[in-house]
Amino acid sequence: MRRKSFPLSKVYGLLEPGPVVLLTTARQGENNVMTMSWLTMMEFEPPLIGCVVSNQDYSFDILKATRECVIAIPTAEIAAKVVQVGNTSGRDIDKFKSFDLTAEPASVVKAPLIKECYANFECKVIDTTMVNKYNFFVLEVVKAWINPAVKEPKTIHHMGKGVFMVAGEKIKLPSKMK
Amino acid sequence: MRRKSFPLSKVYGLLEPGPVVLLTTARQGENNVMTMSWLTMMEFEPPLIGCVVSNQDYSFDILKATRECVIAIPTAEIAAKVVQVGNTSGRDIDKFKSFDLTAEPASVVKAPLIKECYANFECKVIDTTMVNKYNFFVLEVVKAWINPAVKEPKTIHHMGKGVFMVAGEKIKLPSKMK
Repeated sequence: MRRKSFPLSKVYGLLEPGPVVLLTTARQGENNVMTMSWLTMMEFEPPLIGCVVSNQDYSFDILKATRECVIAIPTAEIAAKVVQVGNTSGRDIDKFKSFDLTAEPASVVKAPLIKECYANFECKVIDTTMVNKYNFFVLEVVKAWINPAVKEPKTIHHMGKGVFMVAGEKIKLPSKMK
Repeated sequence: MRRKSFPLSKVYGLLEPGPVVLLTTARQGENNVMTMSWLTMMEFEPPLIGCVVSNQDYSFDILKATRECVIAIPTAEIAAKVVQVGNTSGRDIDKFKSFDLTAEPASVVKAPLIKECYANFECKVIDTTMVNKYNFFVLEVVKAWINPAVKEPKTIHHMGKGVFMVAGEKIKLPSKMK
């Protein structure tokens, strides 16, 4: 994968628009990946992310036990794979193999990066207060990577039942917002 | 406002794609509105939303005290107003008046609906466990409204510093996803 380190202070700008993401975990050398839309930024820097991983998901126990994951942002080119990942369970199949996704070693966590995704964020679980009640994990991004070759990433945004909105044009308004 | 009741079970499909929203509150007859990007679905039904409202925001104390708000989804037509709302404080001005937004009475909460927004969700704060640490509120949507005249809402998605991605084309993939 062609990639360069991405400033932690800029992570919010990639996640704030609400793209579908892939979440990878690893346990005892076995990689897993799931599709996720329920996440939000919680702090700029260090970047904190809140996300819901259902206790029905195979990733739930692994995330809880290992307290590590990678959040990777896919684009429209691999939308079909993103749906396949979301429609299957790591209990039954090796999704990296089945859907031809390439796991690459991360630098800080054992969960793998995904070569086919233009951004990859290595994360540690820092707060499990709301895991029992809402399946809600608080993550800290400890290392961020971006593929500098991808200039206009067409992120995909789930609207339910396999319908996705694809990122459209950008507009710039005068703003004091961060 | 032309509006009809919207099924609570379908709220996730409007918020999951990550649009910028407006959050309204009211206290002692005074309406306030802020711009927000940091929110996520936490449950399908009843729809639960997790969101960050900074303790620097004028809305923070009001939300904490009244435990009620409305989350309204704007579209590209009023993007300039959304930025103005995000760049000012209810401490200084009446934003509804200043930016020509129309507050209309909600049915269950005292916070107002926004006429210019195509979807409005009346919400109650149901969990403040993470408010002190992360400014993170858990809301339950208790009533949802939609403007049936808006067929293809061009939601806007903040990427930082006043840059927004405007919702693009939709794609439909075969999926078992909810």
